[in-house]
Amino acid sequence: MYYIGIDLGGTNIAVGVVNEEGRILAETSTPTLASRPYQELVRDMADCAHKAMQQAGVTEDQIDSIGIGIPGIADKNGVVVFCTNLGWHNVPIRAEIQQYINKPVYIDNDATVAGWAEYHAGVSRNTNSSVFLTLGTGLGSGIVINGKIWAGGHGAGGELGHLVIEVDGVPCTCGKRGCAERYCSATAIIRMAREACADAPNCAIMRAVNGDMDKINAKIVFDAAKEGDTVAMQVFNRFIKYLTIVINNVISSFDPDMIILGGGVSRAGDFLLDAVKAALPQYLFYPTLKQPELRIASLGNDAGIIGAALLGKE
Amino acid sequence: MYYIGIDLGGTNIAVGVVNEEGRILAETSTPTLASRPYQELVRDMADCAHKAMQQAGVTEDQIDSIGIGIPGIADKNGVVVFCTNLGWHNVPIRAEIQQYINKPVYIDNDATVAGWAEYHAGVSRNTNSSVFLTLGTGLGSGIVINGKIWAGGHGAGGELGHLVIEVDGVPCTCGKRGCAERYCSATAIIRMAREACADAPNCAIMRAVNGDMDKINAKIVFDAAKEGDTVAMQVFNRFIKYLTIVINNVISSFDPDMIILGGGVSRAGDFLLDAVKAALPQYLFYPTLKQPELRIASLGNDAGIIGAALLGKE
Repeated sequence: MYYIGIDLGGTNIAVGVVNEEGRILAETSTPTLASRPYQELVRDMADCAHKAMQQAGVTEDQIDSIGIGIPGIADKNGVVVFCTNLGWHNVPIRAEIQQYINKPVYIDNDATVAGWAEYHAGVSRNTNSSVFLTLGTGLGSGIVINGKIWAGGHGAGGELGHLVIEVDGVPCTCGKRGCAERYCSATAIIRMAREACADAPNCAIMRAVNGDMDKINAKIVFDAAKEGDTVAMQVFNRFIKYLTIVINNVISSFDPDMIILGGGVSRAGDFLLDAVKAALPQYLFYPTLKQPELRIASLGNDAGIIGAALLGKE
Repeated sequence: MYYIGIDLGGTNIAVGVVNEEGRILAETSTPTLASRPYQELVRDMADCAHKAMQQAGVTEDQIDSIGIGIPGIADKNGVVVFCTNLGWHNVPIRAEIQQYINKPVYIDNDATVAGWAEYHAGVSRNTNSSVFLTLGTGLGSGIVINGKIWAGGHGAGGELGHLVIEVDGVPCTCGKRGCAERYCSATAIIRMAREACADAPNCAIMRAVNGDMDKINAKIVFDAAKEGDTVAMQVFNRFIKYLTIVINNVISSFDPDMIILGGGVSRAGDFLLDAVKAALPQYLFYPTLKQPELRIASLGNDAGIIGAALLGKE
């Protein structure tokens, strides 16, 4: 059998046909154009799916199911309950897409789906439990326990970016304060870098952006830190401290076999990983116990399609 | 079949014979006398178990297994890796007790065991997932997911008292700073009350202890808060805020069907529960989603024996 995986992002919809092993056989995409009615958006999803099937030489009979990864949460009836950056509330995606392709439809959070992809076809393939952290605009997470996705009893679990790590801390887009994603994300790195650069107009970060703070991004900060710039190193070390505290929190709650770092910030690879590993012992409750393996995600952007497709395999 | 449950505390060892339904048929206990060699302590455990079997009219042939709840963690070989308040490191409890009673021996953390008891025979009986929080000297937790105990891949999971909720916060006995149990425990209530009373020598708390701050305990603070004393209310509300943030963190990570409050502080019952329920919406990531049911533990001190005994049922 084959699976259709749909990665619904704020900018693009990517659709692929995936085989049992989690390999993408064909892939198409289309702009999301988030502000239009959801019916149009879903029709485009179905068009992309049909095109991808044609490219892969796969007929509808050979499709087991459709999976969709969304930047939000869905309920068990295939209704998207929240999807903030699309402005969706209670949108019946399953019913809508089944008008075009009448197959079982599974919907889950994009970070959950990416963690599921890594578990089936990526770096956490041979584990029993894993926690995937996406370090991007926000901090997403995908949890696998005993070989199954764990998203909670009401779909609100696995939102580790909204664990409070600083009571009364930085205001979060969710309305609370001190959420982990305010300290552990590309957005947080940019905020911390701007704060630091305000007092250091000649640092390597400011030179890299020609003094335009709006151009600061996580890569520029990390590159400047790699070159040994003092201000960039301070920002990097502050980020590492927060990330390591989040990883301690993952261990003290889930203690999975593996913790995987994904998302844009994880492209820093060993520079990031080595710093976290060096800092971790001082932030652990049981520093002498065997710890989860720490790894960088291996599937990159493909994780969205692969993980969504393989929702049908659970 | 019957099960032997051993609740190994810092002060007392309580041992019971438990039936399939999680009912204690007979119970004995003996002082722990923690400073003596573990061999003596284990011999007393075995003596208590034999006495309890005799009282219950149960023979060794009818015993399925022995379970032990410890204030620490054990590995899969029945070795207690850490048990701080007994001063134990790598103590081979399973092998030692099997010299006296040759049955399978299961060992787990005391809070994990109490959560397991509530799942089998208590308030969370009909749930699929639950998180049990013991509000005592520290903050312990016991996690059940898909009807199974989840203590992590290396036994370090389910230690929610050591999630950091305040970066660089109050120093913790574990060596880190800002751990949840520094803010959510009887110890935390006492610390916060002493701080508040230093500036309010005539408050109801100080009157209740005749000005002796060493006599402040959680019950005195809660009783004064119930009477409407301003200082006690401030301490109580501060505690409720922290507890509610911890509960948000439990929801954003595990989102279980039920969250159970146990331990000494939970004896405040509805006074505690109503305050948490009132505060919770402002601390949730998804306040409009269905939330875990919040309940007070139902088994009290028996949870230690019952949960330990029923480890053999997993």
